[in-house]
Amino acid sequence: MSRYVYDFSEGNKDLKDLLGGKGANLAEMTRLGLPVPPGFTITTEACRSYLSTGLLPPELRVEVTMALRRLEDTLGRSLGDFHEPLLVSVRSGAKFSMPGMMETVLNIGLNDASVQGLAEFSGDPRFAWDSYRRLVQMFGKTVLGIDGDLFAQALDDLKTARGVVSDVDLTAEDLEQLVDTFKAIVRDHSGRDFPQHPREQLDLTIAAIFTSWNTDRARLYRRRERIPDDLGTAVTVMSMVFGNLGDTSGTGVCFTRDPSTGVVGTYGDYLVNAQGEDVVSGIRNTLSLQDFAELDHAAHNELQVAMRRLETHYRDLCDIEFTVERGKLWMLQTRVGKRTAAAAFRIAIQLVDENLITMDEALSRVSGAQLDKLLFPQFGPHSNELLTTAMPASPGAAVGSVVFDSPTAEAWAAEGKDVILVRRETNPDDLSGMIAAVGVITSRGGKTSHAAVVARGMGLTCVVGAHEVSVDPVARTFTVGDRTVHEGDRIAIDGGTGEMFLGDVPVDASPVVRYLRDGLEATLETTKDDQDVTDLVKAVHLVLTHADEVRRLHVHANADTPEDAHRARSLGAEGIGLCRTEHMFLGERRVLIERIVLADEDAERQAAMDALVPLQRTDFLGLLTEMDGLPCTIRLIDPPLHEFLPDYTDLAVKVALAEAAGTPNAHDVTVLAAVARMHESNPMLGLRGVRLGLLLPGLFALQVRALAEAAVERIKAGGDPHPEIMVPLVASVMELHLVRDQAEAIVAEVAEREGVTLRIPVGAMIELPRAALTAGRIATAADFFSFGTNDLTQTTWGFSRDDVEAAFFSTYRANGVLTVSPFETIDALGVGELVRIGVEQARSTRPDITLGVCGEHGGDPESIAFFHRVGLDYISCSPFRVPVARLEAGRAAVAPPDGETS
Amino acid sequence: MSRYVYDFSEGNKDLKDLLGGKGANLAEMTRLGLPVPPGFTITTEACRSYLSTGLLPPELRVEVTMALRRLEDTLGRSLGDFHEPLLVSVRSGAKFSMPGMMETVLNIGLNDASVQGLAEFSGDPRFAWDSYRRLVQMFGKTVLGIDGDLFAQALDDLKTARGVVSDVDLTAEDLEQLVDTFKAIVRDHSGRDFPQHPREQLDLTIAAIFTSWNTDRARLYRRRERIPDDLGTAVTVMSMVFGNLGDTSGTGVCFTRDPSTGVVGTYGDYLVNAQGEDVVSGIRNTLSLQDFAELDHAAHNELQVAMRRLETHYRDLCDIEFTVERGKLWMLQTRVGKRTAAAAFRIAIQLVDENLITMDEALSRVSGAQLDKLLFPQFGPHSNELLTTAMPASPGAAVGSVVFDSPTAEAWAAEGKDVILVRRETNPDDLSGMIAAVGVITSRGGKTSHAAVVARGMGLTCVVGAHEVSVDPVARTFTVGDRTVHEGDRIAIDGGTGEMFLGDVPVDASPVVRYLRDGLEATLETTKDDQDVTDLVKAVHLVLTHADEVRRLHVHANADTPEDAHRARSLGAEGIGLCRTEHMFLGERRVLIERIVLADEDAERQAAMDALVPLQRTDFLGLLTEMDGLPCTIRLIDPPLHEFLPDYTDLAVKVALAEAAGTPNAHDVTVLAAVARMHESNPMLGLRGVRLGLLLPGLFALQVRALAEAAVERIKAGGDPHPEIMVPLVASVMELHLVRDQAEAIVAEVAEREGVTLRIPVGAMIELPRAALTAGRIATAADFFSFGTNDLTQTTWGFSRDDVEAAFFSTYRANGVLTVSPFETIDALGVGELVRIGVEQARSTRPDITLGVCGEHGGDPESIAFFHRVGLDYISCSPFRVPVARLEAGRAAVAPPDGETS
Repeated sequence: MSRYVYDFSEGNKDLKDLLGGKGANLAEMTRLGLPVPPGFTITTEACRSYLSTGLLPPELRVEVTMALRRLEDTLGRSLGDFHEPLLVSVRSGAKFSMPGMMETVLNIGLNDASVQGLAEFSGDPRFAWDSYRRLVQMFGKTVLGIDGDLFAQALDDLKTARGVVSDVDLTAEDLEQLVDTFKAIVRDHSGRDFPQHPREQLDLTIAAIFTSWNTDRARLYRRRERIPDDLGTAVTVMSMVFGNLGDTSGTGVCFTRDPSTGVVGTYGDYLVNAQGEDVVSGIRNTLSLQDFAELDHAAHNELQVAMRRLETHYRDLCDIEFTVERGKLWMLQTRVGKRTAAAAFRIAIQLVDENLITMDEALSRVSGAQLDKLLFPQFGPHSNELLTTAMPASPGAAVGSVVFDSPTAEAWAAEGKDVILVRRETNPDDLSGMIAAVGVITSRGGKTSHAAVVARGMGLTCVVGAHEVSVDPVARTFTVGDRTVHEGDRIAIDGGTGEMFLGDVPVDASPVVRYLRDGLEATLETTKDDQDVTDLVKAVHLVLTHADEVRRLHVHANADTPEDAHRARSLGAEGIGLCRTEHMFLGERRVLIERIVLADEDAERQAAMDALVPLQRTDFLGLLTEMDGLPCTIRLIDPPLHEFLPDYTDLAVKVALAEAAGTPNAHDVTVLAAVARMHESNPMLGLRGVRLGLLLPGLFALQVRALAEAAVERIKAGGDPHPEIMVPLVASVMELHLVRDQAEAIVAEVAEREGVTLRIPVGAMIELPRAALTAGRIATAADFFSFGTNDLTQTTWGFSRDDVEAAFFSTYRANGVLTVSPFETIDALGVGELVRIGVEQARSTRPDITLGVCGEHGGDPESIAFFHRVGLDYISCSPFRVPVARLEAGRAAVAPPDGETS
Repeated sequence: MSRYVYDFSEGNKDLKDLLGGKGANLAEMTRLGLPVPPGFTITTEACRSYLSTGLLPPELRVEVTMALRRLEDTLGRSLGDFHEPLLVSVRSGAKFSMPGMMETVLNIGLNDASVQGLAEFSGDPRFAWDSYRRLVQMFGKTVLGIDGDLFAQALDDLKTARGVVSDVDLTAEDLEQLVDTFKAIVRDHSGRDFPQHPREQLDLTIAAIFTSWNTDRARLYRRRERIPDDLGTAVTVMSMVFGNLGDTSGTGVCFTRDPSTGVVGTYGDYLVNAQGEDVVSGIRNTLSLQDFAELDHAAHNELQVAMRRLETHYRDLCDIEFTVERGKLWMLQTRVGKRTAAAAFRIAIQLVDENLITMDEALSRVSGAQLDKLLFPQFGPHSNELLTTAMPASPGAAVGSVVFDSPTAEAWAAEGKDVILVRRETNPDDLSGMIAAVGVITSRGGKTSHAAVVARGMGLTCVVGAHEVSVDPVARTFTVGDRTVHEGDRIAIDGGTGEMFLGDVPVDASPVVRYLRDGLEATLETTKDDQDVTDLVKAVHLVLTHADEVRRLHVHANADTPEDAHRARSLGAEGIGLCRTEHMFLGERRVLIERIVLADEDAERQAAMDALVPLQRTDFLGLLTEMDGLPCTIRLIDPPLHEFLPDYTDLAVKVALAEAAGTPNAHDVTVLAAVARMHESNPMLGLRGVRLGLLLPGLFALQVRALAEAAVERIKAGGDPHPEIMVPLVASVMELHLVRDQAEAIVAEVAEREGVTLRIPVGAMIELPRAALTAGRIATAADFFSFGTNDLTQTTWGFSRDDVEAAFFSTYRANGVLTVSPFETIDALGVGELVRIGVEQARSTRPDITLGVCGEHGGDPESIAFFHRVGLDYISCSPFRVPVARLEAGRAAVAPPDGETS
């Protein structure tokens, strides 16, 4: 039989699956001898059992009873005791931290009798009644699902009635009266009395936490973060310590080092005479750790020792919650701390410098997503009006229209508008609005407030604590001094400096992009006045260099123009993995394609094709010149020809109207006939790629000829071209044979005529299930494969990207069929299985074949790890994704072999 | 090193891959001690070597020399000798007989010197010169590619000049002159002299035969018959015996038993004083075997003994070519003989009755394709004018427009017209016209003529030897007596009786269909006056009964109406494997679907859905009633909703024109907006099937409710309904879970309300690659799977059936990428591999799952064998294919385990 309950003294940090992150880390701190209030953790297995049956498992009740008795024996107090009551906090704690699921209840064990005991025991009746009213409030809101505003309103009403501003000015009697009011709210809105029995309080809270796993907010967050829905949450039950026992008590959060600079031991917020969420909810402004040191030197000292201990142990930045109860420090929680993207790189390199981690570990501590954020632009020079400077909470440069609530944010974002959400403070209800926004401003709270933490996790630009900003959500305005900003007005915020500007501000490339483009030396030359930027650029350089050293996957880029190719190469691309030649048939060349399509006679068609050869030769020459010495994979024309013609319906309407008006246009009529003839009910599944090439062999021939001639020209000019021909949409080895035979004949003819040695490898796009399933045969005729995972996803799932995303993607996300678009991250079970089969088959008949991928997945971190594991030789992505791909390819190479990265 | 040459005394009938059918069977006859002229066979391996290098392999030249010497030593004559020359015939002989490749050269070894020797040796100068002119003629045509009409014309001119009608009336001197004429033709049209050296004649002929493997005709035939292109042909070299040595000589073909009735030893054609192809080309009318017996009793007797020997040895009907040289019988060729579909069944049962084969073997001797032909209709009662009665050569009833050449036949057939090709005689050039035609008539030739043999092989209705029919290909008419029939006139021919009628004749169902519908007893009652039909019906019954006994695959039918269901059940279907419910939303119900699509409000949409429930209930009740006691699988609605709305382009034009004319139609505008909103660029890959069901859950719900209520009604009426729910287009197990949960809730609700026990299994259509690849997961939520191989083929290959067949299928067949449409026969390497993976995965997580297929492949013989091998439980096909499917399922069960059936 499995155990459902572990004391803190029993677990360790590696049991996150079972105990959740919170429970595992509490156990670890207990093992380290840090001052953790005793308690126990109920496992995620209990949660899964509850979620599947709707009942707490009977064994759990027994085990909780035993654990409570052990706790009572340790502390010499009992839950709900009339004299010296034991109180406990109950918190959720899943494997992954989820801001969408903030279900915490403190002070369990208090009731009408034990509140008296607590008053006597603490010698502080006001504290006792304050604790009790907090329990009723939290329990009512969290467990019974009563609107929290009802309690907040009652508190405000009481303060108004008493003529006081702050909670701390309310007396014990006031608070006793408030408990009565709160209990009445509970009765009126839940239909039951507030439970007096401590064990009933505890059991109801445990069940409520388990249930909260499936709130819409939690599910939304999990989908966004790709956390499986069936993990479940653990529950930690901890004996209460009190930060609200007067001025020698308090509660705080801190980081072992500054999450943006890496400076050790200075970063945190402390709130005197407060409990629980007060400090992170941003209700009152907090003290810094420096202020805390002055206030209570001993406790601060003990905290510094604990921070150092934790960091040495975890070998990483830790995020800590602590409470001081009458001068005594208690550690309530720790975890590896979130940090900005820039800090992730800087801290990783600092830890290497401090000999705490290796370069491989440093590489695994950063992610492509973080590097990606560093590639975001920043504000350039401008003279916009500075509204105010608040606390920078999450970096980036955001420009958008002001909105004041989540529904508006979502609605405007859905229309394609960039919006900046402005709130007094945020709470989990604002999550959807934050997801929709490009930036967030709060007028209250600090760097550890809800808004700041969530925004950093999302990479959302955010400034907090903008005290000068006065928000009026009813009038839908905010004012700064005498300046009024209305909903819809444009503002710009800098999450790195905390500055807020009026109007649109121009944005500049990031220093990391500058480094990638210009190299280390040139960039450091320009950043020497700014140590933070200099450190960042150096850190990125070191990590990326290490990634390049360890990675097995080569990184190519998808590029159709010499400009793209140049950019890709400057960002580290080792070749062009995909040049989409159809993009070369736009503009004025479209008329030639039209002539090919409309030609009545072969000669006419051939003439149009012949005219394209020199144009294509110029195209290819540009690419080969830019990529001198590196492979340059040219995909033969892929889309159906009618894509180069007008839309069928539009043209049909135009022709019908012209005829009705007695002004028919002969050309339109001709084109319409061609479009109608070529109209396909499912063009994605129609005459395109190699099929078109075999039906109209001159089309591929002109491209091959142009490529061969361009290569010859480069060779004669002393260059080192490495062109490759890629055949799209191959489904059968015969198709590839036919195209290959033709291509080789043309290449041989050009080479002989020009008197040079020239061989151009021919490979296949593997983008149809059949190609993957018969890859062993196709490989016998291919020098290389490139998996086209965009198309492969469409046919494997049987949905076209455009249609699906428009029609039912949101429904599918909402009901959990899809957590992430398979077009963003490769569907490992389906599409990935075809890639795996294709790789295995190809290598079985042709061990030396080169295998790559050129779908958009080539730039997606999770997909890159998959491609590494499955054994590809290269990935190809858009030029701008090349640095991310290099980094992720390196991370994949140092990841544990089972593919888990944590 | 491989051997390229085998003497006839070395091989056997099982070496067809290496020696070709002809060579292997000559070796077998030699082994049996039958009188086969000595000779040797050059292997298919030599052909493959020649085709890949363009040169005869050097070892081959040596081996041929050695084999020729052995032959010369055996016969005591030498090739090209001036006195007693050895002459040889050279013939192609591939593994499968190919009428498209009739490359034969006789009398090799004759030249200007040896013709004198032959004249002396035979004592018959006329024969010697006749043989020489035949060599020059055949060599010129076959090896040098000179138009055969040039030689035929020269022969005709000579006969005209000499005033004679028949070849045999030409003298030795005439023929000597003809040889000169023929040699001049060779010189003028090939630019070289007729080669005098016998070995050069031989080598050139061998190379020509190898080359002929790849003539367009041969390739066309191979594609049609799905014969691999890389087999190559063998070449048999046989010492000549002469059927043209006067009236005691002759040549003939015979079958060991009548290929339409099975009567032993009576079926054949004999032609006195003739050689080679004379007898099959239909140039002169032939004698029957009975006539031959009267003419040469001894030779006929010897032939009867050989026929019995061969049939006992091959345990099957054999087809024989023989020659009598001055009274001595020589066996030139044998093979298992082609037969009509009816004869195949009758002969199989006869051989069982004669204890030559088992019932399992009898089953493997017939095919679904043959049974299929027996299901073709025959003429019903009519009073059309009988034009004439000729020889019935290939059964069936054909009605069509008269055409006189292949191009016209092809052109008219391409326009969708049924055509009947009328020729004096046919030759391989007419193959394309025969493929295009529904029937063929020749005025000359017998049952073994080219037209008859090819037509039987193709299942094409054919009558031959219609002497009364006088064909005028220039005037494009034929006359019968004083009746003239013009090109385009309608005629009807009965290939079973040889009757030709003027005009359209009504057609009736076949007796086999009658048997399948009405049962054996009832049918025999009606056929007792016709022994042939009675025997056929009994044979089909016995074979089909045995197939039902041995087959593992159950046979279900695809049926959407009670009528279809009734027909399917009468033909032996054991359930409905696919009911396409979308067909139930046509007609007047379409307006309800339109309301569902256009509804602005949920209530309006729900009302339309509610209105559909009783209608669907009636539909399902009809099906469940017909299929009482058998499974009845209802597929929930599959196609996108806009399929029920007007075409987008048509409607856009209509609305634009109405607006331009100032007469806008509000309803059209509303519908257009909806159509535009729902328009998808690739509807096949869009919002359909389970996706639609999840987006608009009421749609599936109404169908499930109607089905559950129909089942309850049947149960209450004492019936035994077995409804099953099939979910279309599943790609992920989550989709199935969601639909299943909803369906089970509805079924439970209906069952409880009505107070009956009701469980409806829920299964998934596996018609997307992802579904097959993740079948292990999906199986955990499915009671059954049905592979939808139509859609699976579309997504696996990435082409939609309509688009592909219109656009590039013919190109793909022409260049050999596809030999058969993957929509007709399952693509075992690609689509089949997904089915295999799906079966393996499904059984790994749910061993008791029921697995079937409901694509059109369920009725295709080759595909059925695949589905048997891969381990499916049932196949479902259209009602009319059920008997074929039963037969093929039985054949699959008795086939050798490696899947080879021969």
